[in-house]
Amino acid sequence: MKSVGVIVEYNPLHNGHVYHLSQSKQSTNADVVIAVMSGQFLQRGEPAVVPKHVRAKLALQAGADLVIELPYSYSTQHATLFAKGAISILDSLNCDTVCFGSEEGKIETFYELINQKKLLTSSINTSIRSLLDKGMSYPSAYSTALQTNLETSKLDVSLPNNILGIHYLESIEHFSSKMQGTTIKRIAANYHDEEASHQSIASATAIRKILKKEDDSISNFVPTYTKNAIETYINENEILHSWNDYLPFLKYRLMTTKLEDLSLIYEAVEGLERRVVDAILKCSSFEDLMTSIKTKRYTWTRIQRLLTHLLTNTSKEEMNAILETDRVPYIRLLGMSQKGKAYLNVNKKQIDLPIYTTINQVNQNALSTDLKATHAYASILSIQNQQKLIHTEYSLYPFIYDENSGQFSRE
Amino acid sequence: MKSVGVIVEYNPLHNGHVYHLSQSKQSTNADVVIAVMSGQFLQRGEPAVVPKHVRAKLALQAGADLVIELPYSYSTQHATLFAKGAISILDSLNCDTVCFGSEEGKIETFYELINQKKLLTSSINTSIRSLLDKGMSYPSAYSTALQTNLETSKLDVSLPNNILGIHYLESIEHFSSKMQGTTIKRIAANYHDEEASHQSIASATAIRKILKKEDDSISNFVPTYTKNAIETYINENEILHSWNDYLPFLKYRLMTTKLEDLSLIYEAVEGLERRVVDAILKCSSFEDLMTSIKTKRYTWTRIQRLLTHLLTNTSKEEMNAILETDRVPYIRLLGMSQKGKAYLNVNKKQIDLPIYTTINQVNQNALSTDLKATHAYASILSIQNQQKLIHTEYSLYPFIYDENSGQFSRE
Repeated sequence: MKSVGVIVEYNPLHNGHVYHLSQSKQSTNADVVIAVMSGQFLQRGEPAVVPKHVRAKLALQAGADLVIELPYSYSTQHATLFAKGAISILDSLNCDTVCFGSEEGKIETFYELINQKKLLTSSINTSIRSLLDKGMSYPSAYSTALQTNLETSKLDVSLPNNILGIHYLESIEHFSSKMQGTTIKRIAANYHDEEASHQSIASATAIRKILKKEDDSISNFVPTYTKNAIETYINENEILHSWNDYLPFLKYRLMTTKLEDLSLIYEAVEGLERRVVDAILKCSSFEDLMTSIKTKRYTWTRIQRLLTHLLTNTSKEEMNAILETDRVPYIRLLGMSQKGKAYLNVNKKQIDLPIYTTINQVNQNALSTDLKATHAYASILSIQNQQKLIHTEYSLYPFIYDENSGQFSRE
Repeated sequence: MKSVGVIVEYNPLHNGHVYHLSQSKQSTNADVVIAVMSGQFLQRGEPAVVPKHVRAKLALQAGADLVIELPYSYSTQHATLFAKGAISILDSLNCDTVCFGSEEGKIETFYELINQKKLLTSSINTSIRSLLDKGMSYPSAYSTALQTNLETSKLDVSLPNNILGIHYLESIEHFSSKMQGTTIKRIAANYHDEEASHQSIASATAIRKILKKEDDSISNFVPTYTKNAIETYINENEILHSWNDYLPFLKYRLMTTKLEDLSLIYEAVEGLERRVVDAILKCSSFEDLMTSIKTKRYTWTRIQRLLTHLLTNTSKEEMNAILETDRVPYIRLLGMSQKGKAYLNVNKKQIDLPIYTTINQVNQNALSTDLKATHAYASILSIQNQQKLIHTEYSLYPFIYDENSGQFSRE
């Protein structure tokens, strides 16, 4: 069985994602689609609008055959580690090709740039360091260093999906994986477009904006099952998760923890934790908090990631111990179709890693950071809905989807 | 100027307290009343219904001339340490007499028992240890040991205020203080009476019960200024503080902290922290949580105190460092009348301790546990009301009361 991998967040799943899924499968002639998906907290350092179990089911309905969680320790990271975690999972699952959406759309352009880049690693690194010393943020320094040292007229390295693409391909090389890389040109919506402009494709950012307004025009941009799932979630939980909801808990943690203990949190560097503590007493909203912490030195995303680790109480020690293993050491299976199940069966000899579904004493330790993340994610819900979410986390995975009947057998 | 000290919580201040204040002053012929009052969290391990600044002002209106905070590290403790902290403050303020309410009412009876007790310390301690080994809680073991070893027919050592009285007098001796002890018989209401039975005196427990029902009969049991202050607080904050409100924050802390870190919290002994973690996932209310943690070995109060320390993130290390000094090393002045101000002036040569009012870089460290407690206490309020409470804590003490005009000059 031929497989194609996609690396996703689905926050929430929209028409552009459905297009990417079907094109990935079609263009690679794959039998099976493996989606590696961020869990409760995302790469930009924010909670997903709906929990991972809701998004995993949408992924299956959109055509994914296996949905694997990208663990918190990789999902809430800068592009290099985010890509490394996701590629390591796909490689472990014996995946043939990874297919990513990019502004560029031609894989050769990526390979050309990467080949050039390999020859100039040390001078690129020197450029990055010198730009960082001048107070530039890491992503800007990285992109500027590439532009200074390489022939980038073909690949726009200021665009986030192009950058991610570079990291995916470099990770494949890092792991000496047999996996191929390929790319599909993204259509219509740019990554952070605030407004929906195309008739049926809008960015997830624009869609979240529409969701907040409870505007019915969302039907234009997402499949019916996304619309229904979100409506159901709102009805049951009276909330779509956003940073503002977590502000009381973040404040509580910050104000009842000694500064020296806050400095042990992952990404708390150069006294950033003190900036956060000083700002949180005065802020009236999350936006407000972010604005007062923000400096040129750190991107918005970088600060949101620190706040995420503060919220989930994730320490440097804890994170570094996980990252030390260099690749994700297990498969956390959130959902599968009948075809996905067959794929796992066929490939079981090639898959060395344990596959975790429900939580038990054996895997609890390995998954402790993700469990903590789910508990923090659930903290804003009513007691009853919290218990439901925790029950799902501990006992209900994987969701099994019958692609013929369109029914889930585990709910 | 002659002074009398009272040790109080005022949760909230009621007619019985007013009676105690005026009797204390009258019976000792004192010019000045010094009230040592618990801060945001109380001896029974629970949040006060209204913050300490509201209760400090009520104390002044009821006739106290100085209101001093009993720090968190002593206010949330078993009777021995609670008494020790309060007596050390009164002693430091050159107070002449401490006057406590008791079920007994005659100070001679207390002194008789204490003198007997001194001669039998080691056999009492042996009894206590043996009863604890049999699984009895500390307060029961203490009271039973006294009953077994001493002639207790005159002083009922099963009653909480009699027990506190013993500890007050023993603390005076511990500090070799020149202070006298005296007692006033409590009228009508017993400590934990659930129902208000007397016409104008009810226990604070009964009054809190009435408050919850928003029943107007509270006017029978509290002075008008208490009624008004509570109504104002409810109007502005939409809340009276109770444990149930803090449940989401307690749960958040427990579920995002490793068990080994929870075991560092003060009073987390013999794996109690694991019992709490196991129970909190399933509970639907604070009452529910308490019921599932409770064992014969630990009193309700003892468990509530552990939960308080978990909520405020107060570690063994932090607490033991404070308690090591054996007495409260500063005076945190919450409020004073004109007469109280004069008293401080007259006695300034005898008072060795620094007097802290507003928070600055010099005293921030000494007060850090209390500041943390106020932040935890404030966590359930709206952002705006939180900021108001924190502003009071850092900048507004002491409230100055003009006993002639009945006006506060700092609001």
